[in-house]
Amino acid sequence: MAPRAEIIAVGSELLTPLRSDTNALVLTARLREIGIEVVARTTVADDAALLTGAFRNAIARTDLVIATGGLGPTEDDLTREALAAAVGRPLERDPALMAELEQRFARFQRPMAEVNRKQADLIQGAVPLKNPRGSAPGQRLEAGGTTVVLLPGPPAEMRPMFEEHIAPLLAAKVAGRALRTRILRIASMSESDVEQAVAPIYTTYTNPRTTILGAPGQVELHLTADGDTAEQADERIESLAAGIRAALPGRVYSEDGRELHEVVAALLVERGLTLALAESCTGGALAARLTEVPGSSRFLGRAWVAYANAAKTDMLGIDPALLERVGAVSEEVAAAMAAAARARAQADIGVAITGIAGPGGGTEEKPVGLVFIAVDGAAGARVRRCFFPGERTRVRTQATQAALEMVRRGILGLAAL
Amino acid sequence: MAPRAEIIAVGSELLTPLRSDTNALVLTARLREIGIEVVARTTVADDAALLTGAFRNAIARTDLVIATGGLGPTEDDLTREALAAAVGRPLERDPALMAELEQRFARFQRPMAEVNRKQADLIQGAVPLKNPRGSAPGQRLEAGGTTVVLLPGPPAEMRPMFEEHIAPLLAAKVAGRALRTRILRIASMSESDVEQAVAPIYTTYTNPRTTILGAPGQVELHLTADGDTAEQADERIESLAAGIRAALPGRVYSEDGRELHEVVAALLVERGLTLALAESCTGGALAARLTEVPGSSRFLGRAWVAYANAAKTDMLGIDPALLERVGAVSEEVAAAMAAAARARAQADIGVAITGIAGPGGGTEEKPVGLVFIAVDGAAGARVRRCFFPGERTRVRTQATQAALEMVRRGILGLAAL
Repeated sequence: MAPRAEIIAVGSELLTPLRSDTNALVLTARLREIGIEVVARTTVADDAALLTGAFRNAIARTDLVIATGGLGPTEDDLTREALAAAVGRPLERDPALMAELEQRFARFQRPMAEVNRKQADLIQGAVPLKNPRGSAPGQRLEAGGTTVVLLPGPPAEMRPMFEEHIAPLLAAKVAGRALRTRILRIASMSESDVEQAVAPIYTTYTNPRTTILGAPGQVELHLTADGDTAEQADERIESLAAGIRAALPGRVYSEDGRELHEVVAALLVERGLTLALAESCTGGALAARLTEVPGSSRFLGRAWVAYANAAKTDMLGIDPALLERVGAVSEEVAAAMAAAARARAQADIGVAITGIAGPGGGTEEKPVGLVFIAVDGAAGARVRRCFFPGERTRVRTQATQAALEMVRRGILGLAAL
Repeated sequence: MAPRAEIIAVGSELLTPLRSDTNALVLTARLREIGIEVVARTTVADDAALLTGAFRNAIARTDLVIATGGLGPTEDDLTREALAAAVGRPLERDPALMAELEQRFARFQRPMAEVNRKQADLIQGAVPLKNPRGSAPGQRLEAGGTTVVLLPGPPAEMRPMFEEHIAPLLAAKVAGRALRTRILRIASMSESDVEQAVAPIYTTYTNPRTTILGAPGQVELHLTADGDTAEQADERIESLAAGIRAALPGRVYSEDGRELHEVVAALLVERGLTLALAESCTGGALAARLTEVPGSSRFLGRAWVAYANAAKTDMLGIDPALLERVGAVSEEVAAAMAAAARARAQADIGVAITGIAGPGGGTEEKPVGLVFIAVDGAAGARVRRCFFPGERTRVRTQATQAALEMVRRGILGLAAL
């Protein structure tokens, strides 16, 4: 089991709406590289009671606590005092730190204010951490089996101190343990359906651990394992991933970080296939996703946004009588749009989306969320009737996602959904 | 003394290096507006013991705890269970919530998985909070003088639930000092140019405070003031906003939270104007933005994504000789595409974008980032030659933003940029 860490960022200024704490993000990335998992991240105002509580809570539950900020000389720099209270040990003024502080001020030819003296205070039993770039030294101490590290807030001081004093020590402690994560992505399937299918498998593993994350039209399985080596961690992940793939045949579309439109784009390029699109309710969102991929001109030459009925007739030659008879949101019109897009662009595959994205336009027979998606290719045509829950943006995102999944399955010869 | 709050974001995925929790930032801003200070923000992994500890710690020290995430149906959704353990009360399956859950699945014509049932579990004494946009209801309970609120993680569900169920309740509790924020948005202008123009004004104010935020193709000025009443805070903001508007005549396109495509859509509807689009390098991204607005069929009937040269000729009748002579990325082709889109759609305004989004396709003469944007309307045609820095996505975003700003200025009769 990898050691678990909490990062505490101290400072009221970090709790204003527009600030976020970059130190915590940097430390999260570095700790993972070393093989330590960050399981909690806290930002606390300059308040002694809050800070003491945060330290107590973190020390009780994790192996490593790194706090940044609140080591300055002012009234609201309370980190030292709060940690001393949390571990029940006194602060002692350290003569060596005091001498260094005095030298520093002498070097800059500035008088040392009385308030600066507390920067030489060390919690009983703590090891001081030199900070050649600022006046606030750090501290490291052991408390109840947990290592607690205090570092100053300015990134230019914090980062080199972490690298010099803390990273080597942690690397030696975890010695050789490696932490790895893989993300398995599945499109057009609900979170609970995925859960139902894979829970019997992943719950039998404690290493890797699995987190399930749902987004419109997509479910992600995050598999995190540790091992003596990166290879061992990867093997453990592969063992579980293989079980998940078997439980959801053909459904995992990516294990390398790529999104669905990137996977479909790569498949099209690989097979030398071209695509043409005819979009109604998604209004260009599918074209926009596919052309986000660099080099998309190799597989997508043109697309139509045929929003109005007249546009469907003018641009794609959809028979007005058909539109009159079955309505624009219908299996027949979706199929005709895909076929027309394919023929007019002389593309290998034609894709059409027509539906009711809402909030207006729904009827009892054709409610908001009803979408028909058609794919027309060399192997024949297929139309899927979908019903997507949620608001306009959600409906549109799910529609583009379902269309891409249909194209992917078609190219790979997988059964239709 | 303002009430003090802690925000807890739940989810292991939020602790990976590249994710940050936007819910916490949004809640921090909204709570400030209401007059509640956020004194701690915590992100916790999907781990029952850690979560229970975080709840205990927060409840002991603050007046309000809002937790987001971990209310889904899967094994690693543990927020309900953790809070129940922290306050020492049982979970009880709520018949009314169960009925709503069953209705929701019936409405979407999908079977309900067994795992979904736990979403009807309510902590003893808690008030359920309806979530019409998702399957996870929220909960609100009082514990030891602290109000604890559980909300789902997806922002599209969390935000309206906070506004409907929590904000009014908190506002009533606080009553007294008011904190207000207004966001002024400016398109197609660099952050440093905006700063240069407005710094002499906003630096003379301490209340409101001003924060400048730059994004591709957009600059935001966040003005935050406090006062005895909301009206007083608003008056203070208006005093500074008037100065900023005078310093940047015609440039502030929104002060009410709307994005540029929403403002342009509203202008088109208001004036009864229609739009037709011909996109090359943006590949449907402008159409997708405009059709994101509910009711967009009133002003946008059709759009062409003419990526390849052949598509420009087939779809829009662009003369192959012109393409040969000046190239697809040129003032002449942009103008011809806009005119053709306008004529073929019989629209009031035609808009065309042609450029080099990168990473490939650039030459010394026509480098990546060069984009021509044309707007063709009753008052005449105009082409703007732009050079957008950055990567593919940034270039495309800036191009759609510049096109929308040209349309806005054209409709309002403002001078061209």
